[in-house]
This record gives sequence, structure tokens and C-alpha cells, in this order.
Amino acid sequence: MFESAEIGHRIDRQTYAKAVPKLRESLIEAQWALEESGQFPVIVLIAGVDGAGKGETVNTLNEWMDPRHIRTVAFDKPSFEEAQRPRMWRYWQALPPRGKVGILFGSWYTDPIIARVYGRLKKSALDLEIQRINRFEQLLADDGALVLKFWFHLSKKAQRERLEEIDRDKARTWRVTRSDWQQFEHYDRYYRTCEHVLRLTSSGHAPWLVVEGRDARYRNLTVGTLLHDAIRTRLAQQKKRKPRPPPPSAAPLVAPLDRITMLNRMDLSQSLTDRKYEREMERLHGEMNRLAGSRAFERVAVVAAFEGMDAAGKGGAIRRVARSLDARQYRVVPVASPTDEARAQPYLWRFWHHLPRRGRITIYDRSWYGRVLVERIEGYCSEADWMRAYSEINDFEEELVAGGALLCKFWLQISPEEQLRRFEARKATGFKRFKITNEDWRNRKQWPLYQQAAADMIDRTSTGHAPWTLIEAEDKHWARIKVLKTLVQRLQDVLSRDGR
Amino acid sequence: MFESAEIGHRIDRQTYAKAVPKLRESLIEAQWALEESGQFPVIVLIAGVDGAGKGETVNTLNEWMDPRHIRTVAFDKPSFEEAQRPRMWRYWQALPPRGKVGILFGSWYTDPIIARVYGRLKKSALDLEIQRINRFEQLLADDGALVLKFWFHLSKKAQRERLEEIDRDKARTWRVTRSDWQQFEHYDRYYRTCEHVLRLTSSGHAPWLVVEGRDARYRNLTVGTLLHDAIRTRLAQQKKRKPRPPPPSAAPLVAPLDRITMLNRMDLSQSLTDRKYEREMERLHGEMNRLAGSRAFERVAVVAAFEGMDAAGKGGAIRRVARSLDARQYRVVPVASPTDEARAQPYLWRFWHHLPRRGRITIYDRSWYGRVLVERIEGYCSEADWMRAYSEINDFEEELVAGGALLCKFWLQISPEEQLRRFEARKATGFKRFKITNEDWRNRKQWPLYQQAAADMIDRTSTGHAPWTLIEAEDKHWARIKVLKTLVQRLQDVLSRDGR
Repeated sequence: MFESAEIGHRIDRQTYAKAVPKLRESLIEAQWALEESGQFPVIVLIAGVDGAGKGETVNTLNEWMDPRHIRTVAFDKPSFEEAQRPRMWRYWQALPPRGKVGILFGSWYTDPIIARVYGRLKKSALDLEIQRINRFEQLLADDGALVLKFWFHLSKKAQRERLEEIDRDKARTWRVTRSDWQQFEHYDRYYRTCEHVLRLTSSGHAPWLVVEGRDARYRNLTVGTLLHDAIRTRLAQQKKRKPRPPPPSAAPLVAPLDRITMLNRMDLSQSLTDRKYEREMERLHGEMNRLAGSRAFERVAVVAAFEGMDAAGKGGAIRRVARSLDARQYRVVPVASPTDEARAQPYLWRFWHHLPRRGRITIYDRSWYGRVLVERIEGYCSEADWMRAYSEINDFEEELVAGGALLCKFWLQISPEEQLRRFEARKATGFKRFKITNEDWRNRKQWPLYQQAAADMIDRTSTGHAPWTLIEAEDKHWARIKVLKTLVQRLQDVLSRDGR
Repeated sequence: MFESAEIGHRIDRQTYAKAVPKLRESLIEAQWALEESGQFPVIVLIAGVDGAGKGETVNTLNEWMDPRHIRTVAFDKPSFEEAQRPRMWRYWQALPPRGKVGILFGSWYTDPIIARVYGRLKKSALDLEIQRINRFEQLLADDGALVLKFWFHLSKKAQRERLEEIDRDKARTWRVTRSDWQQFEHYDRYYRTCEHVLRLTSSGHAPWLVVEGRDARYRNLTVGTLLHDAIRTRLAQQKKRKPRPPPPSAAPLVAPLDRITMLNRMDLSQSLTDRKYEREMERLHGEMNRLAGSRAFERVAVVAAFEGMDAAGKGGAIRRVARSLDARQYRVVPVASPTDEARAQPYLWRFWHHLPRRGRITIYDRSWYGRVLVERIEGYCSEADWMRAYSEINDFEEELVAGGALLCKFWLQISPEEQLRRFEARKATGFKRFKITNEDWRNRKQWPLYQQAAADMIDRTSTGHAPWTLIEAEDKHWARIKVLKTLVQRLQDVLSRDGR
């Protein structure tokens, strides 16, 4: 894999001096064309061995290109904010929007490789990381991103020479750290590990581009040229043809032949008297308050997502949860149509954005499940998009839970008759009139489609670590108590487990 | 994931009797339309818990459909022929060609799940299997297959009842084996494992379809309907639109800026005198003969692949290898254009087909690398196809080596001048005249393209377990000796390692 990056590639001074002005101009023009098209983001990963000139080439690229349409993010040790969230969180934050170039210096590859080289990660655990990475890059490619992964390579001999050379140069000695030399001692192990990782993560949609790092001119010119050609090729392809039709669908989802689903067999007649409701509510508020105020709570991030038909009582249930919390602890995120900023990113991006740190709670009033509910039904995305979304969402939630979060998902179910009663009541009540729009009436006509989509969603995304809780919401008392009870119960479970 | 398959779905006798004749007719018509289009294969996986009626539903499907266009393969313990080859070999053999339906009863999922439930496989090892499966199914989907994965589920209670019921029925008792009851004891562990596996292998292009298995009528009708709808939907999509354009390309492969590659820096002046050649050849023949005749050799399958420019001497080198072997041990596979049969399958299929069992040698005169050489250059496949092929080939070779094979890949390199000399010589020599065709002259004009494609190929597919050996072939003596020497050396290594 690396043999041809140990040949001793080089470009002489004269050729370089002649090539650079032309390349700079072309690069800037390509950037503008990309910006103008706004069609896809360009994600450039810079990785490879120490001393291979990664930093210098990144600087050169920044010099050559228009800094307004490029953003370089270097990843070192995670910051406090980053350490409090799932590992992928900081990478999600760094993704460039459509039309821009993002240079990621250090990336999701660094930690797994280093941990493996130093023996902190087993072979099999490394392979799991590879699997996660592949799924993530597949998501980026499916979303249309142009992903370029540059690997800067040096032969063992070249790396030693390079480190010695920098060591000798007094002005630059600070750049070679002890850890660089330490890593050099592991060169062979590092080589084998990287070959393995690169082989398994070099895909048709996100191939690795191995660049020999010894000669700065060769390195810079190669990366610059590849970057330029890749942008231009993709732009030309997208211009030439109409938007790509979605891939052929796999299995169309079909409603159960006997029409029985998890939803329409719920017992909606369950209710609570006022007295029971108030007593229970008081008890649960106290319990919730106690849990959220405990020391152990600082170790867990809570994410609660509410979905349900219009007027099913999501807002009311959320308010009852919020009431038992300190205002500094929680945040309610009402999910509406995506903003332009969010539209320029993979659709999960805006949800990653709001993830709470540990000791905090984020309550989503509607959530990422919009993809497989409203977007599916209204045709805002293709069938392939929402079919794929089930596994993308499962991956996202697994990442969340692995990152120390407690995730509670509530589906609030009412009957169509109850919905009609609530719509009518809202129309009649002055201050609630704004809560009912034409869209609500339109959605109501699609009732069976929404119910089918919700049933599919629950089938495909209710997992051991992130189960759905179905809430009978015909009676508001019953619904609110069941929501709070579930939250308290699951929080107790996770806090006592952590305490052990 | 399984909740909605524990509801107690059922179809009454009357509804069933009315639905079946219509469904049968539609299914047969869909089969004919599929056969006529010849556009894609339909791969149906049947999996799930014991007692959920998998076998009965498979029988029903076979009854309902046209047996000429359907092929059911059941996988039990591997046969002798199968056990001698990589694990995926038997599944490759069972793939239906385009235009046909293949029902795979038991599949690549069975062994990993069972091994995990009985604790023979660690969690991390299971996850690796999942990764392999996903890569394989991605290959099938990329090749256009419609993949339908049915999972037959029973709740714990339903499974116990079902096993007891069959137990009571004297005529059928033989169908419940002790191992069925043994598996039932592991129900909870099995449930958790399957949920995990299904979640991570349910993708947009190959989703799982979970079917409740308790009621035979519900089960049959559901599977039949889904199968029919999926075929019809796909056929309609492919009719409506023109062939799908290839996905946007990732990074265009660019020749090294300084034009130096692994190939053009080879020292082609190396040669051997007649005397040295004959002495070496005799020694190597003896050694090869001894190794291939040893007892240890029965444990390894040898695959040798030869690639190189026209007239580089592949045939001559292959003959020298063959000469040292017993004719019953080896087989030379000359790779020409694919037959119609091969064209109806994923392009790697025909190479899987010929894999040697242990103790045997298959020599490929040209190989699966045609995809990234001639097919790339002549445009026989899209850029996306051959870009993807690098990782598909790496996966294939890893599977091969993991299955106990020794894989040697030779690239024979000559200069364009030497090629011309050999062409002219062939034209002049009567019996060799047939060896030179117009196509050879045409290919010669594409020399730089072939060289670049070969350099890319070596960069992207030379791995630790399957390295390329570059052979300086300007001097035939040198080339033949280096080939044999490499084979002998690698065979010695692998046999002595196995002996340990």
C-alpha cells in the first residue's frame, strides 16, 4: 500500500515555481465555482506519519486558496466541552457546509490508530472502530459530500532523517517532541496498523490518497492538484447530468396484512382521576428533582425525544417534565423545518449540534425522527433517503449512548376522534387558537400514512439501548404520569448502575 | 425490533383462501417479467427462530412460483468440497443469476449467530462478522441485486407452545430435534444477539423484514406479498428510467506528478546466463516438486495470478511453474471475456467459481484484476465500478487467505521496445503467429494508460497478506526464475508456519 510512496518522489525548484501560480489560480476558481453551485461540501482529511509535512502542506493550501471558503480545524486532545459529549461530536461540529471546503487536520482515524499502536486497543476493537468509521463515511457520501483522505507517508529511513534534520535546526527543535521520537520507535507496528486501517477504509466513495511526504514541493503540488481535479471533476459531473435519481428501492415497506400494529392495539381507555394524578405528580416531581440534583447526575447526559400526532399533548408533557428541573439544567429544543444552515449539512447535523453535555438534559419536541415521519410522507426526501435513515439513526443513537447518554424516546398516541375534539377546542379557546393551523388539518387527512410510518419507525428503531416508550395519550393525566414515571425509572436505573 | 412480531398477527381461513389464487398468479407473472428483463437477481434470505415455520413457507413459495425460475438452496453443515474452501465460497455458488429468484434457506447469518449464542464467538468477533457481511451485501447491492432478508420471529411463549405442539403430533415429532429444545433454553440470549445483528445489518439496500411466525397463513401471505411487491416495484423503477448513471466520482486517480511509479523505476536490465538459468531452474523444480508432494501441502490451497503487458511472458512463466507439478494437482485458468453465465453475476463470481480446494493449485493467466486494468481503460465498466473494485478485491483476497489459501500475484513488466521486438518475432514465426492479434496492436497504443492503471492497482491492492511481486521480464530467464523462486519461498514460509 505504501511502497510507491517510498520511491523518493520529488519536484525540482524550477518546475514548482512554474506550476504554482497556475495551480493557485485554478484552485481559487474551483473554490468559487463550488461556492456558487452550493451543491456539495468538500471534506479533506489530512493524516499520516509524523514529520511528513502535514502541517506545512495545510498551511500552504490555506495560503493558496480563498480563506473565506475554507475552514481548517485541527484536532488535538478533546476540550472540556468535547470530552463531555460523544466522541464523534467534535467532528460533526467541524463538517463544512455545502459549497465549502473543510480541512480536517487529525481526524476520526487518529485516536484508534494510536491506541492500537500503543496496545491500548485490541485488534478486534480496532476493527470495530473501522466499522464505525465506514458507516460514518458512508453517511457523508450518501449525503453527497466529496471526501478526500490524504495519507502522508515516509519510509522508516526517511522519517528518521527528517526527525534528525528538524532536531538539528535550532529554530525548529520545538517542533519535534519527545513523543515524535517515541512514535518512531514503533514505526513497524505503526506501519502494519496503518496499512490495515487504510485498506479497510479505502472505499470507492472515500478512497485514501497516499502521498510521499519527503519532498515539500512534491507533496504540496500533489495535494493541491488532486484537490483541484477532484472538485472540478465532481462539478463537471453534476453540471452535465440532471439530479441523480435515487437508487432502486429494496423492499417496499408494507403494512401488516391484518392491519394490526403496535399502535392500534394500544389501550387508549386508560386514565387517572384528578386526585390520583396530583398525588402521583407530586411524588414524581420530588423524585425527579432529587435525582437531577444528585452528584451522580453529573455523569450522565439525558436526551428525551417526543414524537406523536398533532395535539397528542407533547407540549403539556414536556412542561410537566421541565417543571421538576432547575432551569439551568435543561433545554427544550422545538424542532421545526431546518434552517438554511442545517440544510447545507447532513440531516442529522442539527441534532448533533444541540446534544447536552453530562449533567444536562435536552428535550426535543419532535426530533430526528422527522426524517422517517413527515419527510417520508410528504416526499421531502427520497425513499432511499428515509429507508437508509433507520440505520443512520440507530448508529447515531448508539454513538450517543456509548458516549454516556441516557436516551428516552416517547411516542404519544391518541385516536383520530380525540384529535378532532382537541382541534375544535383549540379553535374555540382564544389563546390556543395560534396552535392550530391549516397544516394540522392537512396532516390529519394523512392519518393512516402517519400511523403506518410511526409503526415502521418503532419496529426499526426500538433497540435494547434506545427503546421507544409508547404513551397512551387519550387521557392527558395518564400520559403525563407515564412519561415522568418512565424518565424517573430509567434515570434511577442508569444512576444506580453507574454507582456500582 | 421484534415487538410488533409478537402481537399475534393472523389471517382467517376465508381471507386466505380468497387471497392465495390472486397472489399466485401475480407472483408467477412477476417472475416472468423478471426473467424477461434479465436485469437483476432476487436474493431471498430465510432466517429466524426454530419452529417459526421457515421450512413450510419456503415450500409454499416453491409451490406458488414457477420452479424453472427459482432455485432454493438450503445450507447445513459444510460438505467436504465446501469445507476445503473459504467460508463464503458455498454462498457465492448459490447466488442466482440476473432474472432469477434464489431462496437461501439458512445463510451467512446462521453460523455467526449460533456461535455467539453458544459462547464460541466473542462479542467483538461477532461484530467483525457483521462487518464482513455488510461489505458482502454492499457488493451484491452495488451489483444491482434485489436483496430481501426475511426474519421469522416467535415470542418465547409462542416458541415453547410451537415446539410442544409439534412434539405432541406423532407424525411430526422427528422434526423437533433435541437441538431445537436446547436452543429454546437459550432464547433470551438468542433474542439479544439477533436484535444486535439485525440492527447492524439492516441497511437501506438490504433491510430486514421481520415476520411473525405463529400463524401459517399470515406468514405465507406476508412473505409472498412482500416478495411480489418488491419485484414489481423494482421492475417498474427500472422500466421508468434510463439506466442509472454511475455515482459521482470521488477522487480522480492522478499519475504521480514526477511520473515516477513502481513500474517505470524497475531495473529491466537484470538477466541470467543460460548456464545459471538452467542450474537454478533445475534446483527450483526439484524444490517445488518436493514441497508440492509433501504431506503439509494438503493443508494449503495455492492461488497464483499472473498479470502483465501483452507478450510479457506470462504463458512461458506459467509453463515453467506447471512443469514442476503433478498434473492432477494444478489447473491453469486462462481468463478471457466473461461468458453470458458470468455476466449474469457479480464480476468476482467466476473467480470464486474456480477456487482450488486445499492441496491444489489454481493458476490464473490474467485474473480478477481485469476489472481495474482492461475494463477500466476500455470503459467496459464505470469509474465507480472499478474504483469500488479495489476494496472488493481486497475483501475477496482477505477471505481467500483467511480460508487457508496462499495467494501469489505476479506483475510481469517489459519495456515498450521489447514488446515491439516480441510482436515482430511472433509475426515472423509460423506457429506463434496466432498469438498476435489486432487487439494486441491496439492495446499497445494505450501503453501509458495501462501502465498507470497497473501502478494504481499495485498501490491499492498490495497488502501484507497478498503482496504483489513485480517481475522484471525483459529477460525471460530472469523472469521465470524470479517467479519460481518467489513461489517456492512463500510456499516454504507458509508450510513451515503451519508446521509449528
